[in-house]
Amino acid sequence: MNKLLVINTGGTFNKRYNEQTGTLDVAQDNKAILDILNKCARGNLKIDIKGIIFKDSLKIDDDDREEMVETIGKYDKILIVHGTDTMDETAKFIESKIKDKLVVLTGAMHPYSIDQIEATSNFMIGLSFLQTYENTGVFISMHGLVKEHEKLIKNRDLGIFQCQE
Amino acid sequence: MNKLLVINTGGTFNKRYNEQTGTLDVAQDNKAILDILNKCARGNLKIDIKGIIFKDSLKIDDDDREEMVETIGKYDKILIVHGTDTMDETAKFIESKIKDKLVVLTGAMHPYSIDQIEATSNFMIGLSFLQTYENTGVFISMHGLVKEHEKLIKNRDLGIFQCQE
Amino acid sequence: MNKLLVINTGGTFNKRYNEQTGTLDVAQDNKAILDILNKCARGNLKIDIKGIIFKDSLKIDDDDREEMVETIGKYDKILIVHGTDTMDETAKFIESKIKDKLVVLTGAMHPYSIDQIEATSNFMIGLSFLQTYENTGVFISMHGLVKEHEKLIKNRDLGIFQCQE
Amino acid sequence: MNKLLVINTGGTFNKRYNEQTGTLDVAQDNKAILDILNKCARGNLKIDIKGIIFKDSLKIDDDDREEMVETIGKYDKILIVHGTDTMDETAKFIESKIKDKLVVLTGAMHPYSIDQIEATSNFMIGLSFLQTYENTGVFISMHGLVKEHEKLIKNRDLGIFQCQE
Repeated sequence: MNKLLVINTGGTFNKRYNEQTGTLDVAQDNKAILDILNKCARGNLKIDIKGIIFKDSLKIDDDDREEMVETIGKYDKILIVHGTDTMDETAKFIESKIKDKLVVLTGAMHPYSIDQIEATSNFMIGLSFLQTYENTGVFISMHGLVKEHEKLIKNRDLGIFQCQE
Repeated sequence: MNKLLVINTGGTFNKRYNEQTGTLDVAQDNKAILDILNKCARGNLKIDIKGIIFKDSLKIDDDDREEMVETIGKYDKILIVHGTDTMDETAKFIESKIKDKLVVLTGAMHPYSIDQIEATSNFMIGLSFLQTYENTGVFISMHGLVKEHEKLIKNRDLGIFQCQE
Repeated sequence: MNKLLVINTGGTFNKRYNEQTGTLDVAQDNKAILDILNKCARGNLKIDIKGIIFKDSLKIDDDDREEMVETIGKYDKILIVHGTDTMDETAKFIESKIKDKLVVLTGAMHPYSIDQIEATSNFMIGLSFLQTYENTGVFISMHGLVKEHEKLIKNRDLGIFQCQE
Repeated sequence: MNKLLVINTGGTFNKRYNEQTGTLDVAQDNKAILDILNKCARGNLKIDIKGIIFKDSLKIDDDDREEMVETIGKYDKILIVHGTDTMDETAKFIESKIKDKLVVLTGAMHPYSIDQIEATSNFMIGLSFLQTYENTGVFISMHGLVKEHEKLIKNRDLGIFQCQE
């Protein structure tokens, strides 16, 4: 099984403005990801995309995490788009359940619909790492870095994922 | 010497609209790169940026390529922003002169000033690869792929760098 | 007194994304307006800008409206940037207090920071009308129309200000 | 005949980047105008759009201007999107041929595809003026102003249409 799998769980990455309510809601679709792939990869990558859960990460619970694990199935290289607030918890959960695969979690501080390039960078670096890294583990791709998940920590005051080494 | 070096030689990546002449000119500065790093890396990467040559790649000659080699100096990991039309020739030239370093060339089909995300993706994937790849060589980062330079070829009809393996 | 006055009271027009809270907040500044004037009017218009109140229009009360009236002072031609939900109430209040002046209210369904052109169109049409209309009254500039305030009504289901004539 | 007519003749307003040639070409379609109307007018305006000529204004000749006059036909209120370099000449030509109608010429210094809001402002102010002005004549809508064509002159050094009164 050579294809990459992208699991889209929602999060800030996928928020869009709702004129009726005046709020930013997690879009229940993969439009942001498809737009990025269309412009940046231009057909070069063989990817399956599965949209599930579609939640703000503060509302992600272990049932949702179990659903992510089941969705991974037989794929070996997986990118998960996830809200930033509980990305660390999901990473630990997945690491406890899945061995011998390469999993990268990514997301964004700014919705793709408001500022396109931070989300694009986090996402595309994650996809690239899946292709070039030859080992297994659970990683996070944020703000120019890809690190084992426990080393890349969200600094909530600054809004930056920073390396703890 | 641990810092990454970015050499900005211009190319479509750096073109901006000139109202006086009605043309797209190669900007003689690093604004596009600094904007990308500011939003996407948020201070995480230690990088030196050197802007030289600032040409459309059809006008790059071997004197320019020699200047690139000299600019690399003692750095070990180098990203070169370059026009797409002669990226392959510059890659060969650099490979003939430089061993034991990791060099990635990148660029864009669309100016960053017109469509931000293709340029951002090519550039940030290149920077990420420099950090995570543990060997040497001359690579190209374009359209979601990082490959040894002779394997990633511009398809001029489609406007896509495609893998020849 | 020939200068136009722009009173910026906030509203959706001025909302910006706050990474720390994940919410869209009314910016407490005139940056959106200054950006529009800089790019679209290019120094052609003599305008004073006064930023006051800076609220979502659902929170605007009669004390705020009284403050708007006082801010108008001796100016004869005034554009008020206001949230869309209570724009009609503020228009009525101002009409009851101010005669012999030309007042236009405007705003946006989409924050300027998310979709620039709807806000720009509503705002610049309002400014243009102030210059070319030679009578007095209280008007609304929204979605390509400038009409006496009681004739241009927000259709909440569609998110469009529509003409009732 | 109550509908407004928009005649789209091309110009910088309609230029888009061509990846194959690396040039900005005048798009042979009305996409920029339709995008502006869709977001800014939201169905409020009854407009017919006719795309003709599609040239850089330096290449507009009197045959083209004659075609514009014929295209106007029985419409009474007409907005012409035109390149900025010869907008003044076309305005004079139309004034010599057409009486008893209201014609506004507009355009942009920056292509809509590169910087959306200057083009949007010029265009939408022109449309608004057609609706609210109750006399006839040939006008120019640029950079926040709508003036009789001979009073609004392009300052080529600054790239601004300025009022000569």
